[in-house]
Amino acid sequence: MDVEKLCTGQCAVGRGLGRVGDAWSMLILRDASLGMTRFDQFRTSLGIAPNILTRRLKALTEDGLLEKRRYSAHPPRDEYLLTEAGRDFLPVLHVIGEWARRHHGGGEVTRLVDAETGATVRPVVVDGTTGAPIGARTLKVAPPEAGRRSWLLE
Amino acid sequence: MDVEKLCTGQCAVGRGLGRVGDAWSMLILRDASLGMTRFDQFRTSLGIAPNILTRRLKALTEDGLLEKRRYSAHPPRDEYLLTEAGRDFLPVLHVIGEWARRHHGGGEVTRLVDAETGATVRPVVVDGTTGAPIGARTLKVAPPEAGRRSWLLE
Repeated sequence: MDVEKLCTGQCAVGRGLGRVGDAWSMLILRDASLGMTRFDQFRTSLGIAPNILTRRLKALTEDGLLEKRRYSAHPPRDEYLLTEAGRDFLPVLHVIGEWARRHHGGGEVTRLVDAETGATVRPVVVDGTTGAPIGARTLKVAPPEAGRRSWLLE
Repeated sequence: MDVEKLCTGQCAVGRGLGRVGDAWSMLILRDASLGMTRFDQFRTSLGIAPNILTRRLKALTEDGLLEKRRYSAHPPRDEYLLTEAGRDFLPVLHVIGEWARRHHGGGEVTRLVDAETGATVRPVVVDGTTGAPIGARTLKVAPPEAGRRSWLLE
């Protein structure tokens, strides 16, 4: 996969997937949202090979979703904290979770709740301008420049 | 990665990522949403190796996001159509695209527009019950069973 081409291409979806388009990266962000910050926490939680974890943490840091911070000088130890861009990605995970609840929710599955009220939260994607649920109206992908062909979405 | 374990685990996000947790699968769904249905269309659009494309189409079909339909008997040829579960996944891609527009939108990047009005659509994730944007309130991940510990989200 030509990640560089994805990351710099015109397609916004491709630009996102070129940066966070694999399950390990998204699971690391999930764990970070649950409060994990350290290499060993991620490794234990995910059962991920250390070399793969190192690579993914580096990529997520370079792409601005995690920030590396040294928490011990002797021995040198770093922790990884969600940046604003990283936190801004978390709704993607909530929507994936909600999709899985709907379509693969058999058996026991986690729920998302409001920390204060305990009410179940059901993530849905809407148009921020009109409030209409995405999927209720037909959408097109429009090119960056005017006057070029748009693509009608299913 | 133990995909089987992810797919059957308690974590809803993991269940989703176990099925559609890689960039190729999501790019195939993106292309399907743009009207592509045939092997050669996906291959040409994505520059993906035929053996990988075959595997991904098979997995997406088995997981119920695509439906395989024979469109020619001689020679035997199949096409792949989005199922209801597949279309239901598309908002995830729109949210990834919107994230990329916000954080990696330098240069020319595609926009999402209403097919009828031409107005720019800005996908945001809200709680379907209260309408509050996800991120505005503190959330917890609650376990399937009552009485067990919940995890506070960042």
